[in-house]
Amino acid sequence: MITTDIGIIGAGPTGMFAVFEAGLLKMHCHLIDSLPQAGGQLSEIYPQKPIYDIPGYPTVNAQELVDKLSEQIAPFHPTYSLGERVETLEKLDDGTWLIGTNEGTVINCKVVVIAGGLGCFEPRKPEVDRLAEFEGKGVMYAVRNPEAFRGRNIVIAGGGDSALDWTIFLANIANKVTLVHRGDTFRGVPDAAEKVAELAKTGAIDLMLKSRVVALDGTGHLETVTLVGHDGKEQQLQADSFIPLFGLSPKLGPIADWGLDIEMSAITVNTRDYSTNVEGIYAIGDINTYPGKLKLILCGFHEAALMAQSAFKHVYPDQRLTFKYTTVYGITELA
Amino acid sequence: MITTDIGIIGAGPTGMFAVFEAGLLKMHCHLIDSLPQAGGQLSEIYPQKPIYDIPGYPTVNAQELVDKLSEQIAPFHPTYSLGERVETLEKLDDGTWLIGTNEGTVINCKVVVIAGGLGCFEPRKPEVDRLAEFEGKGVMYAVRNPEAFRGRNIVIAGGGDSALDWTIFLANIANKVTLVHRGDTFRGVPDAAEKVAELAKTGAIDLMLKSRVVALDGTGHLETVTLVGHDGKEQQLQADSFIPLFGLSPKLGPIADWGLDIEMSAITVNTRDYSTNVEGIYAIGDINTYPGKLKLILCGFHEAALMAQSAFKHVYPDQRLTFKYTTVYGITELA
Ligand SMILES: Cc1cc2nc3c(=O)[nH]c(=O)nc-3n(C[C@H](O)[C@H](O)[C@H](O)COP(=O)(O)OP(=O)(O)OC[C@H]3O[C@@H](n4cnc5c(N)ncnc54)[C@H](O)[C@@H]3O)c2cc1C
Ligand SMILES: Cc1cc2nc3c(=O)[nH]c(=O)nc-3n(C[C@H](O)[C@H](O)[C@H](O)COP(=O)(O)OP(=O)(O)OC[C@H]3O[C@@H](n4cnc5c(N)ncnc54)[C@H](O)[C@@H]3O)c2cc1C
Repeated sequence: MITTDIGIIGAGPTGMFAVFEAGLLKMHCHLIDSLPQAGGQLSEIYPQKPIYDIPGYPTVNAQELVDKLSEQIAPFHPTYSLGERVETLEKLDDGTWLIGTNEGTVINCKVVVIAGGLGCFEPRKPEVDRLAEFEGKGVMYAVRNPEAFRGRNIVIAGGGDSALDWTIFLANIANKVTLVHRGDTFRGVPDAAEKVAELAKTGAIDLMLKSRVVALDGTGHLETVTLVGHDGKEQQLQADSFIPLFGLSPKLGPIADWGLDIEMSAITVNTRDYSTNVEGIYAIGDINTYPGKLKLILCGFHEAALMAQSAFKHVYPDQRLTFKYTTVYGITELA
Repeated sequence: MITTDIGIIGAGPTGMFAVFEAGLLKMHCHLIDSLPQAGGQLSEIYPQKPIYDIPGYPTVNAQELVDKLSEQIAPFHPTYSLGERVETLEKLDDGTWLIGTNEGTVINCKVVVIAGGLGCFEPRKPEVDRLAEFEGKGVMYAVRNPEAFRGRNIVIAGGGDSALDWTIFLANIANKVTLVHRGDTFRGVPDAAEKVAELAKTGAIDLMLKSRVVALDGTGHLETVTLVGHDGKEQQLQADSFIPLFGLSPKLGPIADWGLDIEMSAITVNTRDYSTNVEGIYAIGDINTYPGKLKLILCGFHEAALMAQSAFKHVYPDQRLTFKYTTVYGITELA
């Protein structure tokens, strides 16, 4: 079990900066994120794009901002559980909380800060007959261990970068790779699209354009994939694996079941300290809502600062907080 | 008369960033500040000090942050009235406002944003008998035209940089300079303190340590300054000018008389949009107050963003505002 002062669900820019504001007040933080890296939407959706409305940065690349935030919070030594999705939240008799993840990690903390943004990023699932039934039995939404596909027949669906990249990569490993794409051009980088076209020409892969997978079949494990081609005709392919790669989309997920007041998929908070209706739980950044709310990075920063002042009373109930400027008092590294 | 969409009183970091948020929504701004430069407390009080809690900047010098903000708002071509103190605010029948300064400048605008920080910086005045009576008649709080002191007898009071610097500078111009200081060591830079000690040793100036000015006298114009020395004895000096240099301290000033709800020298606002009790007037940054308020730069930035969304309805009453990310839409320079 991990023990800390504040458990922060979501390691986007807001959760990251919350570590800084908490650290100034001598509170330790543990960050949990279902993505394999910190940075939230910035690192996952638009790492190489410029942002123009970070105050003091006429322009900054999203990933560069995340890197700066990492550097800024480093003196407070936050700990991380990345690639883990928070599933459960439980209050103990002593007033502390237990946060549980899908990987079995348990974090015990005095304050819970939900900085979950638009929610957990989850794979977008296509509409295919019996899809859910074969999840884990041939259907997967990400490639974790390419070696597992050696000698197998695979059907990949999608038209973006990951569909193209994995098609190219697995062409050398699998027995047969079939790439199924609804359109006839690709959204991915031109290089990868050309490479796929070349592999198709030489017969190293099968490329089915203007086609889509409509059904799956098999006894226990996936055996065949049915697709409808550009001519409207159905066709069955032998397949050990079906990998739909249609990107990620955020879902509020389990957070919706914790007794918090929720309005339009966002948690309602008090702007005095961004506390929720449940004592000891705060919600900051894109995941909260209040009159005037803007889903902007700079707003999450402000919310983190006010939250930290209020969280202090849960972590140090006997201490009085005095407000200090960093310029005057500097920052003291946490042990 | 200057005509603009938003008149911003105070060109500190909050007022500056408000230009950016307003500019994104195609609103022009005019900034007015009593100081001769933009940047507020940062440029005036601690330009060379590091700030550690600007999100995305592990550390940034105060003046560097101000320079970055200038660069960030440049595409929106703000106009400035610097070195002018706002004295009056008047609502016209057409619903627009007239902002008037002590220099006679008049700004006509649709929205007023008060970003006045802790107020106007004004000289700290010592407790001296008949001080106010001789203001402009020998008493002054800043040296504007050193040549005016040629051949005169001057008493300077204070122990900081400006008292030391002006003592050194005026020693060559005046007939006699007397520096009166309460303590026996100086707060100013060591170099200047040494130079002053040297001038005193050679008789180029008179240095009165552990002393303070207690009274002024004269008929019409200042003629004598009375001081109490380290031995508790009073002493009278001939003086054409008395220049107390005890630094600047902020005063809310005329803003207090505009019918705004004020609590502990700060303007109460609604956190939905940081509007005041008077329609069309907003207050952002250190000058406002609301439950949870922190006088931090990063909070002023957030307040500026929400204010701009709300101010839009006064500037473009017939248009609907659509929320856009700078990353996706970029920023369009204002004409
Ligand atoms: C294309 C695009 C352009 C944008 N441009 C701008 C811009 O110019 N300026 C601007 O200010 N904003 C912009 N935004 C918005 C900005 O990215 C968000 O406001 C910001 O990311 C919010 O930060 P956050 O930390 O609150 O949430 P997020 O960045 O969404 O991070 C939340 C994190 O929580 C994690 N999470 C959620 N639930 C769980 C759970 N149960 N278990 C584990 N982890 C969980 C998620 O995986 C995610 O990593 C843009 C957004 C997009 C998509
Ligand atoms: C030593 C020191 C260290 C600090 N360290 C930090 C830190 O580490 N982090 C942090 O976030 N904050 C810090 N602060 C606080 C920070 O400087 C303020 O929060 C910030 O300056 C507020 O910005 P503002 O734009 O609201 O107001 P200000 O910076 O005060 O600017 C307001 C401006 O309005 C002008 N004005 C007021 N009334 C009038 C009038 N009637 N007419 C014309 N002009 C007028 C003033 O001249 C002034 O320039 C520190 C402050 C000090 C003094």
